[in-house]
Amino acid sequence: MEKIVSLQNGRVKSWKKLATKKGREQQKTYLLDGWHLVKEAIAANEVLVSVMGTHDAWREYRDDLPTGLNAFEISDEVAKAIGDTVTPQGIFAEVKMPKTSTQLPEVIHGAWVFLDAVQDPGNIGTIVRTADAAGFEGVVFGHGTADQFSPKVVRAMQGSQFHVKLVSEDLFSATRYFKRSGLSVYGTQLNPAAKNYRELKTESAFGLIMGNEGNGMAPALADVTTNNLYIPIPGQAESLNVAIAAGILMFRLNEQ
Amino acid sequence: MEKIVSLQNGRVKSWKKLATKKGREQQKTYLLDGWHLVKEAIAANEVLVSVMGTHDAWREYRDDLPTGLNAFEISDEVAKAIGDTVTPQGIFAEVKMPKTSTQLPEVIHGAWVFLDAVQDPGNIGTIVRTADAAGFEGVVFGHGTADQFSPKVVRAMQGSQFHVKLVSEDLFSATRYFKRSGLSVYGTQLNPAAKNYRELKTESAFGLIMGNEGNGMAPALADVTTNNLYIPIPGQAESLNVAIAAGILMFRLNEQ
Repeated sequence: MEKIVSLQNGRVKSWKKLATKKGREQQKTYLLDGWHLVKEAIAANEVLVSVMGTHDAWREYRDDLPTGLNAFEISDEVAKAIGDTVTPQGIFAEVKMPKTSTQLPEVIHGAWVFLDAVQDPGNIGTIVRTADAAGFEGVVFGHGTADQFSPKVVRAMQGSQFHVKLVSEDLFSATRYFKRSGLSVYGTQLNPAAKNYRELKTESAFGLIMGNEGNGMAPALADVTTNNLYIPIPGQAESLNVAIAAGILMFRLNEQ
Repeated sequence: MEKIVSLQNGRVKSWKKLATKKGREQQKTYLLDGWHLVKEAIAANEVLVSVMGTHDAWREYRDDLPTGLNAFEISDEVAKAIGDTVTPQGIFAEVKMPKTSTQLPEVIHGAWVFLDAVQDPGNIGTIVRTADAAGFEGVVFGHGTADQFSPKVVRAMQGSQFHVKLVSEDLFSATRYFKRSGLSVYGTQLNPAAKNYRELKTESAFGLIMGNEGNGMAPALADVTTNNLYIPIPGQAESLNVAIAAGILMFRLNEQ
């Protein structure tokens, strides 16, 4: 196995570039940091371009990894340089970005979350993870929503990108597309005049739009939804965190 | 108004110390960063030990602040040094930590969240904010749960510490105390053999325990609860983020 100890090594430089959107788009790959994510990628039959581990990490995980990998032993210093966390586990993989990430399926089935200019990577990743848990089919990333494969989004997704479809699409187009397919699209608003989410009947396929942390969803988009939902707030907080609101709605709307 | 431009100024040093638990305990105060939090503190009649603003911040917020404040104009450099965010809004307040933060009320009413070794400051703050929104009465911080007033917790609480009671208490003691008062305490487990949360009847006063991000709640604590709840996961994610799980449960258990 090739050993890499220098931060000047060309491979290290290319792995570090995966922390930026430009680097990911050029290389058409992104980085998984930590054993849970590497394991999930293997279970999902993802294409592992390379697997990088420190001496200790290889000793710990070698028996659980498939053979025939493009494997590298890296120094602790290199692990810190390419990783996103302060105390990396020392195991990484570079994986191909999914090809299908730019279009909605021809026939929509299942429930989908639409993200309208959601900004915080932790919120985005957590929403994807929660959508996966709730049995949703996919997540549509609208304009202005942070990138799908940034290190912080990937960390918060916890491997759920291997279980749900991630699509980049204009949300007006996606909303029209769903409605033409006979499906409902629900917006969300901090507005007691909107529909109480508890009054909604379960549907097997629909879209649910979550908006920007500070400003909510775009008013023009709210105008073209089937309906807009509201979560009543009995307490004194002005609003809910967007990922929390998404979780409450997704686990309500998926009830049998 | 006194102007402070030097990072060597004694007040700046004392404000910076509020980023550490030791500093907060010595000074019995903590720091609010940003207009939303300062405004919430004023609305809640909190004791503002001092209010610090940059030149621009004073121009913007002066008319919305009460008179008679112990006010300081600080340089942008000082604002960056004492603030937690990369781009501070330039307005801060040093406020007294609440005296009542160490004991449960003599008569318990309302719903309470118990945090069992929850680690991530963002999760903790978000749970407090969500408890506030859901109309909960308070949050009990058990041993091993990160500090209530660290900068990241305070940022995520969004001022909800002024609306709900925050108590530090051993969770075995708190559980016994609730049960002796005739109230239920519900644990949470990633265990399909536990009780489905959707089958629970609403109660007006109870405790709900949320556990550590990696390990869940302590098994010994789960043994002494009234019941333990489970959120069924129809999808492929292994688990939910603890703040998301808390949000789903709190907004279910508070339903009328």
